[in-house]
Amino acid sequence: MKFKDYHRSHTCGELRKDHIDKEISLCGWIHRRRDHGGLIFIDLRDRFGITQLVFDPNVSIDLHNEAQKLRAEWVIFIEGRVRSRGEGLVNPKLATGEIEIEVKQMSVLNESITPPFSICDDTIEVRDELRLKYRYLDIRRGEVAKNLMLRHKAMLCIRNFLDAENFLEIQTPLLAKSTPEGARDYLVPSRIYPGNFYALPQSPQIFKQLLMISGMDKYFQIAQCFRDEDLRSDRQPEFTQVDIEMSFKIPDDILSLTEKMMKKVFRECIGTELSTPFPRISHQDSMELYGTDKPDLRFDMPLIRLDDIILESNFDLLKDYVKNNGIVKALCVKNGAELSRKEIDELGAFVGKFNIKGLAWMKKTADGFSSSIVKFFSPDLLLKIQSRLKVEENDLVLIAAESESIVNQGLDHLRRHIAKKRNLFEPSSFKFAWIVDFPMFSKDETTKELKSEHHPFTHPHPDDIGDMNKNPLKVRSLAYDLVVNGYELAGGSQRIHDPDLQKEIFKLLKLTDEDIREKFGFFIDSLKFGTPPHLGIAFGLDRLIMVLAGTDNIRDVIAFPKTQKASDLMMQCPSKPLKGHLEDLKLKATPTEIFWD
Amino acid sequence: MKFKDYHRSHTCGELRKDHIDKEISLCGWIHRRRDHGGLIFIDLRDRFGITQLVFDPNVSIDLHNEAQKLRAEWVIFIEGRVRSRGEGLVNPKLATGEIEIEVKQMSVLNESITPPFSICDDTIEVRDELRLKYRYLDIRRGEVAKNLMLRHKAMLCIRNFLDAENFLEIQTPLLAKSTPEGARDYLVPSRIYPGNFYALPQSPQIFKQLLMISGMDKYFQIAQCFRDEDLRSDRQPEFTQVDIEMSFKIPDDILSLTEKMMKKVFRECIGTELSTPFPRISHQDSMELYGTDKPDLRFDMPLIRLDDIILESNFDLLKDYVKNNGIVKALCVKNGAELSRKEIDELGAFVGKFNIKGLAWMKKTADGFSSSIVKFFSPDLLLKIQSRLKVEENDLVLIAAESESIVNQGLDHLRRHIAKKRNLFEPSSFKFAWIVDFPMFSKDETTKELKSEHHPFTHPHPDDIGDMNKNPLKVRSLAYDLVVNGYELAGGSQRIHDPDLQKEIFKLLKLTDEDIREKFGFFIDSLKFGTPPHLGIAFGLDRLIMVLAGTDNIRDVIAFPKTQKASDLMMQCPSKPLKGHLEDLKLKATPTEIFWD
Repeated sequence: MKFKDYHRSHTCGELRKDHIDKEISLCGWIHRRRDHGGLIFIDLRDRFGITQLVFDPNVSIDLHNEAQKLRAEWVIFIEGRVRSRGEGLVNPKLATGEIEIEVKQMSVLNESITPPFSICDDTIEVRDELRLKYRYLDIRRGEVAKNLMLRHKAMLCIRNFLDAENFLEIQTPLLAKSTPEGARDYLVPSRIYPGNFYALPQSPQIFKQLLMISGMDKYFQIAQCFRDEDLRSDRQPEFTQVDIEMSFKIPDDILSLTEKMMKKVFRECIGTELSTPFPRISHQDSMELYGTDKPDLRFDMPLIRLDDIILESNFDLLKDYVKNNGIVKALCVKNGAELSRKEIDELGAFVGKFNIKGLAWMKKTADGFSSSIVKFFSPDLLLKIQSRLKVEENDLVLIAAESESIVNQGLDHLRRHIAKKRNLFEPSSFKFAWIVDFPMFSKDETTKELKSEHHPFTHPHPDDIGDMNKNPLKVRSLAYDLVVNGYELAGGSQRIHDPDLQKEIFKLLKLTDEDIREKFGFFIDSLKFGTPPHLGIAFGLDRLIMVLAGTDNIRDVIAFPKTQKASDLMMQCPSKPLKGHLEDLKLKATPTEIFWD
Repeated sequence: MKFKDYHRSHTCGELRKDHIDKEISLCGWIHRRRDHGGLIFIDLRDRFGITQLVFDPNVSIDLHNEAQKLRAEWVIFIEGRVRSRGEGLVNPKLATGEIEIEVKQMSVLNESITPPFSICDDTIEVRDELRLKYRYLDIRRGEVAKNLMLRHKAMLCIRNFLDAENFLEIQTPLLAKSTPEGARDYLVPSRIYPGNFYALPQSPQIFKQLLMISGMDKYFQIAQCFRDEDLRSDRQPEFTQVDIEMSFKIPDDILSLTEKMMKKVFRECIGTELSTPFPRISHQDSMELYGTDKPDLRFDMPLIRLDDIILESNFDLLKDYVKNNGIVKALCVKNGAELSRKEIDELGAFVGKFNIKGLAWMKKTADGFSSSIVKFFSPDLLLKIQSRLKVEENDLVLIAAESESIVNQGLDHLRRHIAKKRNLFEPSSFKFAWIVDFPMFSKDETTKELKSEHHPFTHPHPDDIGDMNKNPLKVRSLAYDLVVNGYELAGGSQRIHDPDLQKEIFKLLKLTDEDIREKFGFFIDSLKFGTPPHLGIAFGLDRLIMVLAGTDNIRDVIAFPKTQKASDLMMQCPSKPLKGHLEDLKLKATPTEIFWD
């Protein structure tokens, strides 16, 4: 084999009219072959594009014969002359569509057996398991490849932006120590200290705060993080975080830095101009108006509280909810009066999945409100409803009652469900917002104890610190989330730099001195050595790329993703340990059998 | 607390003469305090530099009093006016040395207890264990911080270089499958499939080859890698690799790409101009001339084979070595005749550590060679030695005999030892070279079986493929290493893209079909689907930063390094698993007690 055989002069994506009559060489994969009028046409593919080759028996009968043997996904090297495709034969869908190559020499660099699915026909749906098993072929189909290129571009764009802002990328350990951040850690057994374990970090949180203490002001890292959780469709056991931390700054600073970064990323990666500053919505307002702390703001349709009106009405069924600590909220579907009884029933069934037992409804027609519940309201109350919900002719009002959390969850889903069904928004638009003034604590449903809403290093709002012991559930924190189109994209907070305040928080969280020493001992110590005020933010990079790429599936933006059971169908892992390995680690385990395929 | 309190206008590294009379504000740590002639001088430090503050009782007696309470490493915010230091008081060692700040306002942002070692006095040696335990304070001392900034710069420089060359950074999984790459893997237990394990990758080798198969031509990644080995002083259990792979190219291409990258990195990071191309030395020549495959070329002093001369001499002791499959090599120490008998004996003891039993020696004086062994050689043979070793007056010839590997190892060390002791080179110079034409296989000392010298995916030299079965130990591979100043900086190879050739290699390595299926099954399959010719290289990033920073200690270039027992003295990990965690994983272990401190 001569290695010089395949020194290409160009990629398959770069030849244009300007190159006509040039002698060139290309390498690539046989994307498609067509025999046509005595000529053989080959679409040759690499990651840069596709170029059309022509094998003409008048140029070389031998080459033409050889070309007949070529099969899909074989790898070839060719030499030839660039020529115009001629009138009417231009392919405007291809960047190289104005030219083709008259082939004069060819070497087959490698053959291919028949792939398990078609590479060239991306209209064929391939089932997920097969795509993951043959991921290296799935990537060839182009969609994932395009996302990986976008991901590369976004990562580099972020790095250069932060560098220009004087941030340093500093790598932190992956063999670390378990810290209680909510989810379960992945463990790594130590061989030197048998029975002891490292933990793969869920985030570089402790390290980035330590870097602030060390004086490394303005840190960032595009960091691998790990969570051993039961996976939802948009989660992976290993994921990537853009992690940022700085000292001597306040939340306003990091919000505007982030806005500047998003502006640059969206402009450079997908050519979209974002308008900044992003609106800021308090956590309380967001929950009230949208039922969620990650509202989709591409459309309006807020949730409106009707408790007071219901109490004045004769609608006893809903009144009971309000009297028993429940709430009543409504939303107004513009032009929703056109919905049939059956369609409205379907919406009722939809919220039923979220434990709302039914939807009350009223249509506004030229003759006023109509429906079986109108009778419960005086004309005055109906006017109140109309003005509060901004109801116009032909609108539909939907009303739900239950506990606050159930109403919020159900109507958040309903709001997005209706908006999607009724095309109330431009899917490719981006509506960013900051959610601010989060509560510092919430109550754990099972233990009834306080727990951190963000994490235990979050700084309470300076105006609320006095209330912390008296009324902890009313204390706001200096945490902030960035949301876009119903996704949480980033979250962060001002951190506690005062060791006494940190201890007080731990006490409220009922962490014993022993817990604190065991889990954070060294970190609490570190706070005593002159910790600067500091704060940070962390982006889910996978999520950001999903938003940029316009996909709902996290697997579309990761080269080699895992299944929802955290397995890799391609490598077939996890797998049994190699012989002797568990003995080295002094571990005992009984491997369960995994059946692949 | 008002967060606005600490909005600095500048960092501690940026004020100059131009700022004189400006009102500014700074944040930072108390680096040093001096009371002098009624004034208090504070060196205020952040990662950008140091600025001198002056508290003048004539400006504010209250502030002056407060300043007296300040202690080392407290964090303060000040407002004040920039003023000239005045004639004779300029500090040329500081970038801000021409100015100082007349302080008008101050807030203490945080206090500090007394650090376990001095931050401001970097002449004090602090023991390694203490530095690692308080790493966040160690970083404040400046040396590690400087290296981390260099590391950031080098990583970004590499990324932008490779992006400009059309490479894509693609992240590959860290929860992967064990592959036999020589060292022991770190395992990660699976919870969903108890008794099964992921392995943390020793390198992204398989993934980068799969990416070539997937058509993602021109990949790179700055990747975390893991090895559970007993650590040498320049190893860490987790380390970083700059991993590069491309398709349709030959070794010449990647060698020149690498040279271009090194040129840019050394220029931009430390202002050093490298001259390229780097010389290429065959593995055989390198072993012959320097006894190692990573020669330090900052100085000459090659090892010279004397077997033939010894056989013609009467030096029976050494003759026996040659007759019994040993070898004799010598080196010529320029002006070494000045060494005393005692100093020469010390060199003999030095090589003794590498199992060479003694050094024979001759001095060349104005009267010819002198020493007790001169008598064994005829005048003719002495002339031969003289010309072969280029001996001049006042030189010293040192001769060693043993098996080839022992002579090589011992004289490699001796050569570097002498060069260092006698200042034969400029320590801050850089001498790069490529080592090429590695043997494809070597014989495992214990099993006597063939093993891959590089890894089993390395392509044999096309000229030698025919000899593979007949004489495998003579087969060269298409592998290449980049060495500098005695370090291996990078290594790579052309990979096998022919599935039949790959199988043949596995067969020579005595991997059974079952082994192959178990370990590489899916990878061998992937080669059948049109694998392009491809090749790559991987840099040890930590090593590269060490070379750029001029340090021998890998811990100097890592933010939070581990000890040689792979433990983290700061976090105190590995540690016992949290309650219930092993049960979730269905693992049994008996934790050994670790005593920290």
